[in-house]
Amino acid sequence: MPSLHRAVPALRRLRLANTAFQQPTFVVKAAARPTCQLRYQHAEAKYEADASTAASGVDHSPQEQPDRPQFKIKPTSESYPNLKRDSRFKEVTADDVKFFKDLLGSDSAVIDGVTQDASEDLEAFNADWMRKYRGQTKIALKPESTEQVSKIMKYCNDNLLAVNPQGGNTGLVGGSVPVFDEIVINLSRMNKIHTFDDVSGVLVADAGVILQQADDHVGAKSHIFPLDLGAKGSCQIGGNVATNAGGLRLLRYGSMHGNVLGIEAVLPDGTILDDLSMLRKNNTGYDLKQLFIGGEGTIGIITKISILCPQRSQAVNVAYFGLESYEKVQQAFREAKKQLGEILSAFELMDRQSQALYKRASGAKLPLEAEHPFYCLIETSGSNTDHDSEKLNNFLEHVMGEEIVTDGVVAQDETQIHSLWACREGISEAGQHFGGVYKYDLSIPLPQLYDLVNETRERFQNNGLMGDTDDFPVLDVIGYGHMGDSNLHLNVATRRYDKQVEKALEPWVYEWVSKRNGSISAEHGLGLAKKEYIGYSRSETMIKVMKQVKGLFDPVSERCLIVAENW
Amino acid sequence: MPSLHRAVPALRRLRLANTAFQQPTFVVKAAARPTCQLRYQHAEAKYEADASTAASGVDHSPQEQPDRPQFKIKPTSESYPNLKRDSRFKEVTADDVKFFKDLLGSDSAVIDGVTQDASEDLEAFNADWMRKYRGQTKIALKPESTEQVSKIMKYCNDNLLAVNPQGGNTGLVGGSVPVFDEIVINLSRMNKIHTFDDVSGVLVADAGVILQQADDHVGAKSHIFPLDLGAKGSCQIGGNVATNAGGLRLLRYGSMHGNVLGIEAVLPDGTILDDLSMLRKNNTGYDLKQLFIGGEGTIGIITKISILCPQRSQAVNVAYFGLESYEKVQQAFREAKKQLGEILSAFELMDRQSQALYKRASGAKLPLEAEHPFYCLIETSGSNTDHDSEKLNNFLEHVMGEEIVTDGVVAQDETQIHSLWACREGISEAGQHFGGVYKYDLSIPLPQLYDLVNETRERFQNNGLMGDTDDFPVLDVIGYGHMGDSNLHLNVATRRYDKQVEKALEPWVYEWVSKRNGSISAEHGLGLAKKEYIGYSRSETMIKVMKQVKGLFDPVSERCLIVAENW
Repeated sequence: MPSLHRAVPALRRLRLANTAFQQPTFVVKAAARPTCQLRYQHAEAKYEADASTAASGVDHSPQEQPDRPQFKIKPTSESYPNLKRDSRFKEVTADDVKFFKDLLGSDSAVIDGVTQDASEDLEAFNADWMRKYRGQTKIALKPESTEQVSKIMKYCNDNLLAVNPQGGNTGLVGGSVPVFDEIVINLSRMNKIHTFDDVSGVLVADAGVILQQADDHVGAKSHIFPLDLGAKGSCQIGGNVATNAGGLRLLRYGSMHGNVLGIEAVLPDGTILDDLSMLRKNNTGYDLKQLFIGGEGTIGIITKISILCPQRSQAVNVAYFGLESYEKVQQAFREAKKQLGEILSAFELMDRQSQALYKRASGAKLPLEAEHPFYCLIETSGSNTDHDSEKLNNFLEHVMGEEIVTDGVVAQDETQIHSLWACREGISEAGQHFGGVYKYDLSIPLPQLYDLVNETRERFQNNGLMGDTDDFPVLDVIGYGHMGDSNLHLNVATRRYDKQVEKALEPWVYEWVSKRNGSISAEHGLGLAKKEYIGYSRSETMIKVMKQVKGLFDPVSERCLIVAENW
Repeated sequence: MPSLHRAVPALRRLRLANTAFQQPTFVVKAAARPTCQLRYQHAEAKYEADASTAASGVDHSPQEQPDRPQFKIKPTSESYPNLKRDSRFKEVTADDVKFFKDLLGSDSAVIDGVTQDASEDLEAFNADWMRKYRGQTKIALKPESTEQVSKIMKYCNDNLLAVNPQGGNTGLVGGSVPVFDEIVINLSRMNKIHTFDDVSGVLVADAGVILQQADDHVGAKSHIFPLDLGAKGSCQIGGNVATNAGGLRLLRYGSMHGNVLGIEAVLPDGTILDDLSMLRKNNTGYDLKQLFIGGEGTIGIITKISILCPQRSQAVNVAYFGLESYEKVQQAFREAKKQLGEILSAFELMDRQSQALYKRASGAKLPLEAEHPFYCLIETSGSNTDHDSEKLNNFLEHVMGEEIVTDGVVAQDETQIHSLWACREGISEAGQHFGGVYKYDLSIPLPQLYDLVNETRERFQNNGLMGDTDDFPVLDVIGYGHMGDSNLHLNVATRRYDKQVEKALEPWVYEWVSKRNGSISAEHGLGLAKKEYIGYSRSETMIKVMKQVKGLFDPVSERCLIVAENW
């Protein structure tokens, strides 16, 4: 093994990687990173108009997806015939339509048979981003104020009309769209940023503000929104809180449970719960807002949030490595934690297959010419460019010298930072680019984390469902995720949705995870996709208490239907 | 105003401060900082025997308090005659005593009239650390396992016996001791550390583990418990979680809501709720554990916790400044956030009066010879000694050069680090050293934070209750706290507890805070002291839902009595 003395020459190998990248240099990155937008062609188009995202700066963003098969999405109730509409809920009547029209005006109430082109517009509210789930709502409401949300909820509660709250509709578990005729309450018109205080770092904003907008807003005052994810150009901060989104900055800034200071929410009966504290500390009673964080809209609709935004780091560096084995990836992670300490802001894992699929879907050139079994993306963020460069250099010398890392590049300007991040952020979209995708978002103890990808791949190699031609539903099995949080994204990229594929995966994946005391949903939530499988990650007692909590907030529905189709 | 060019000569003034401290040098601090122990003479003595705290290393620790007046504590029911025992709760019978003795053995059940010297021992469970509240329990139980806690709770629930959970009994709001004859369930014998994984940083331990022990345990593997506070030698981690303790590291590591990964708790009916997840991410249903964090034991007794411990910083620096005004303190804080960024781990505020009282109570010499209206303590923690020194030096040059800071010292070894911290951590004890103390723990927007101390002091100057002789109940009004969290500790140090003093303070203090949208309890919780005042920080709707949550977990008691006397 080469000693540390050989570290400096070894580091030069970073230069060989790709002519587009050179010897590590370190840049100041003040602006927010434009991300690969998850552009949903219907619903999202509306939000993107407001989002002011600088997507054009991302060379490799596979946004237009010209060759993505635009297959028709089957109604969820056909794909999952075991789902039955709860007959206690009323169907919408002419009186209901009149109430909603009078309350919101015709612009903000899209109603089948009433609004012009309603059925086309409603498709956007019914279909999810993965093109896997499709509801059959005939009414989508777009309230502009908390009071309007409250009136809608009270009316629906009094009249036994089921509702489904919807943010940016970028969720990955079918929780953001209806199954039957639940009325969609879409938050996109509640999109005002109220205050931002750059001494305390506290932002107060409507739930419907697009994540990218929120980040740009605080970015202009040298702060950073404590959450970042691939869908930032479309997803809404209210939805982020409601689903306890994790994303790319969790390793550094922690979860929503720690960062959200307050919420305003409308309960199922229309009550407005004002817990919009701007205080970092407030130990006066139960921290009720925590139930709404990750509650997926099942006990109320979040209408405003107050969140602590950290100081934006002046120096941001991004490196991208090739590694020989998952063992080496773990070594690199341990070293990064130790040597980069407080400036480590992301440690992302991507396997060879995920990068190949990203390349194929996006047409982008990968940063390293040779193929490697594994890739990692490391980001550092700190307040002093020289110090950070030195720390990163020492780390690079070490991991190259010790042959933990085989090859690598370090971004030398902002464009390169974006290109490297695109290799990670573009995977999710690439996964479903050629048809559909079965997505699993799992917490697994680090040493066993990648075993699941290997075993899943073997499973499809053996069962005849995976191959290179259109005869096979499965295209490839890919693994990537947030190494720093023990969070694996297992994606099975398919040419079409296929019950055989689903049967090969479920409940096998969940059983595998459960045996290792993992979580069947690390960050995506339960939604419709996983509601039946909660028992793999939670005890009977826990589920019983959760049902009681649901019953407390929403006594009308013991089956958790009136607010959100999620559980 | 001196320009930045004068910064270096100005910095030399740091040398003048005190011969005990010299020109800033920067040390590696590997070991945990011994703290000023809050030694409660009865109950705590037991815990300290297990705590292995290196208190002898703290020169200035006012532990023994030889001259603290040991006045007799009035029973709470006498001090607050409006409190009435809920007659629905049964008094303990011979059958109950037999059940507890059979279950726990005589060692673990201290029972009046049964156990030898019981009445003396029971005093330790009945009296709080501030010597302000005293209950009248005749039974204190010390279970050794979750199963025992479960059996006790079920029995008490079935037989309508009120209980009061108790950790280290270091709480400051009267929540840890009974008022009437509630049975004390003390967690001190559940004190095992189960596992610590130094790759993920996850610690799993019993609720009764002393905070200092937990920190020492993870410290031996280069990690740090994400909470630190003055009572660390006595307080228990279960109590820390139950009260959502904030402390000295919150600025850097965030709150318990973000750091606690899982809990095991026993519900009022004896059900064991196993939510002891070791995963950083688990979005499968409501995050129920959050209700127990800061729930003050009112909906169940936490028996185990799982918590994320960050990597311990190799380099720790501590500086202590004198400043001319509160305006300068705010400037220094803004500069520290900007220039120290990711390495800033504490920014503590102390006023002149708090330091004078600390000096008088402890006999310690203060770090700066001259008096200043305000003092700040800044701590940095990072992974690289040279980098941190440079950042701190740049910061010091700036704040001295700009005359934001008048004078200051930087610790040059571990002993000096301890001595500087003692000036901050010793205040709480000093506050009640000469008799009693009225403590207010408040969140207030930063610009107005210190106004309350000035106004309170004026109030006592004008109402004839404060003076230098024993004729006056009030000795002094002091202000200190966690500047980084907008968290003020307002203490009114008295020679004795006095209703006139209390009347001058309450509800006036709460009204003052409420008008500024602050919190009447930033980190201490409600306990008995503030349960009547929750309305100053929470809306009617919030309180109504909290009551419903209490009712859900503890249907036997609509008045929130069966678990803890807190609310």
